[in-house]
Amino acid sequence: MARYREYGAVFSPARSWPRVALWSLLLFVLGIAARIAQADDPLPSWRDGEAKAAIIHFVERVTTPGADYLMPAERVAVFDNDGTLCPEMPVSTQFAFTLDRLRAMAPAHPLWRDTEPFKSALAGDIEAVAAGGDKAILQLMTVTHSGMSTDDFDAMVRDWLTRARHPRFGRPYTRLVYQPMLELLIYLRSNGFSTYIVASGGTDFMRSWVEQAYGIPPEQVIGSSSKLLYEIRNGEPVLMRQRAVDFINDGDSKPIAIHKVIGRRPILAFGNSDRDIAMLEWATMQSRPTLGLLLHHTDAEREYAYDRKAFRGRLEQALATAPARHWVIVDMRRDWAKVFRD
Amino acid sequence: MARYREYGAVFSPARSWPRVALWSLLLFVLGIAARIAQADDPLPSWRDGEAKAAIIHFVERVTTPGADYLMPAERVAVFDNDGTLCPEMPVSTQFAFTLDRLRAMAPAHPLWRDTEPFKSALAGDIEAVAAGGDKAILQLMTVTHSGMSTDDFDAMVRDWLTRARHPRFGRPYTRLVYQPMLELLIYLRSNGFSTYIVASGGTDFMRSWVEQAYGIPPEQVIGSSSKLLYEIRNGEPVLMRQRAVDFINDGDSKPIAIHKVIGRRPILAFGNSDRDIAMLEWATMQSRPTLGLLLHHTDAEREYAYDRKAFRGRLEQALATAPARHWVIVDMRRDWAKVFRD
Repeated sequence: MARYREYGAVFSPARSWPRVALWSLLLFVLGIAARIAQADDPLPSWRDGEAKAAIIHFVERVTTPGADYLMPAERVAVFDNDGTLCPEMPVSTQFAFTLDRLRAMAPAHPLWRDTEPFKSALAGDIEAVAAGGDKAILQLMTVTHSGMSTDDFDAMVRDWLTRARHPRFGRPYTRLVYQPMLELLIYLRSNGFSTYIVASGGTDFMRSWVEQAYGIPPEQVIGSSSKLLYEIRNGEPVLMRQRAVDFINDGDSKPIAIHKVIGRRPILAFGNSDRDIAMLEWATMQSRPTLGLLLHHTDAEREYAYDRKAFRGRLEQALATAPARHWVIVDMRRDWAKVFRD
Repeated sequence: MARYREYGAVFSPARSWPRVALWSLLLFVLGIAARIAQADDPLPSWRDGEAKAAIIHFVERVTTPGADYLMPAERVAVFDNDGTLCPEMPVSTQFAFTLDRLRAMAPAHPLWRDTEPFKSALAGDIEAVAAGGDKAILQLMTVTHSGMSTDDFDAMVRDWLTRARHPRFGRPYTRLVYQPMLELLIYLRSNGFSTYIVASGGTDFMRSWVEQAYGIPPEQVIGSSSKLLYEIRNGEPVLMRQRAVDFINDGDSKPIAIHKVIGRRPILAFGNSDRDIAMLEWATMQSRPTLGLLLHHTDAEREYAYDRKAFRGRLEQALATAPARHWVIVDMRRDWAKVFRD
């Protein structure tokens, strides 16, 4: 009260200070307060709402000493990649790589011109390839992702990424990542969480760029894999990528992969399709505090809007399951103030 | 000089202080100096020699700013388990568990009494089981390690470990671990290394006790695995262990498993048998500074002495390869002042 009276005395309009000076000061103070609030906001690209509140409430709950406190080692968060951390439309980054590799390999494989799924893939007819189902896609993947060492494959992916551009946004794929998700990853890590990718994409394909793009190191990338063969070639040990699938990390396989690699149940899972349901169940159906999140692509203007119709992006069952499981739906159009990083 | 003269004056024998007092003081000072030296020694259970010097030189080399400095993220060290961190004689800890499980399950399986390898295993005839090769051992393992959830298996292993005792040393297996190796693990971690187990033992079997025994968390345990099935049982998600092998982490599979889980090449590898050769090659045959180590069991008195004759502990080829690869042989009898933790 004493302080207030003192300020009141100094700035009193009764002493014929112009009113505008008082208002200027007030606006200046409010401006500083707003800036401080923004700097304190760990998720500035998330609009205030149920999703943002749920995230912050959950993180504070497990990091504040009390009944729900969990040790940092237990704070395991798992994220799908395509469609959760970056766009998966019109095709995933890895499938764009696959199509480019096929085109580069085509001259040496004349039979591909008349054989499916190669014929449609070389023509860029994604719908026709998709009609062949997972089998057709796997065939394209294994042919383009095998026959080289893991080191050579890594170099190949890194080289492609410097040249490739997204067909709609014209930007390198490595920079076409969701800003709100980057903020979430950083927010979780700064609160002692470990942040894993658990995705159907190839583990090695993702490792070539996700550390730079999201700050996620190779040992926290869990994906699909090819069979490998250990050899000594020219006096150097190498792992040769075989034309055979080792593990497809999708659907019910995600909890299995999480157990195999991490050996702990996550307490936070973030996905964007029905193929993430098992992962969300595995994370959230337990007695510790947990948080399940699903990204709903509702923003045709800034990104894409899809859920039921798309070939890989079905979210129907997950949306129906969410209320009973208390999974939070993140509506891109409503909840994100900004979509892509600058 | 002034200080020296001052002390000299106080303790001068010329002033007829008994000589014994001077000698007592000298011994006291030397005793303190020795204690300080011991406290500074990161590996007090290692005797001075080539192995200890090589370890300390290597750690200082990659952690000291300069040409050979490596970032902490690159300081990945991998360790075999049975025979490297703990005894594997007369059988591995996991095989002792397997035999006890077989005995517990036997009443419900009357046919085992006349069927190999069950008959020999129930009779405790390890040599006869071993004669059946890896196939016989795998059969015993899969039968005893399947049919329950991963949680129930974990509880089963933890319960067994509280009761089981090593046949020769009479101690719980979890406390029958090598003191010099514990010191090495702590020394490496305090220098920014991550310390992984890469062993042929079951990942889940090891996870039930290695965190307590060695301070190695579940996500740094890479072993063999059974196929798992994801299910919702009584409203709870579970991973059911199937009676089928998923991955055997031995020999040439070790570099493959390291790549799949870690995605980085280790710079230090420590094994004790020919089955660790590929892992040591993968770690040491590269341009960065590296260290390969092999434990030679030479101490029949304090532990065991074996290399060529034993069923699983063959070291013949590794010993022959070591000089050309600059792998360091750790001779248990010569290099370890102490074998087991207290």
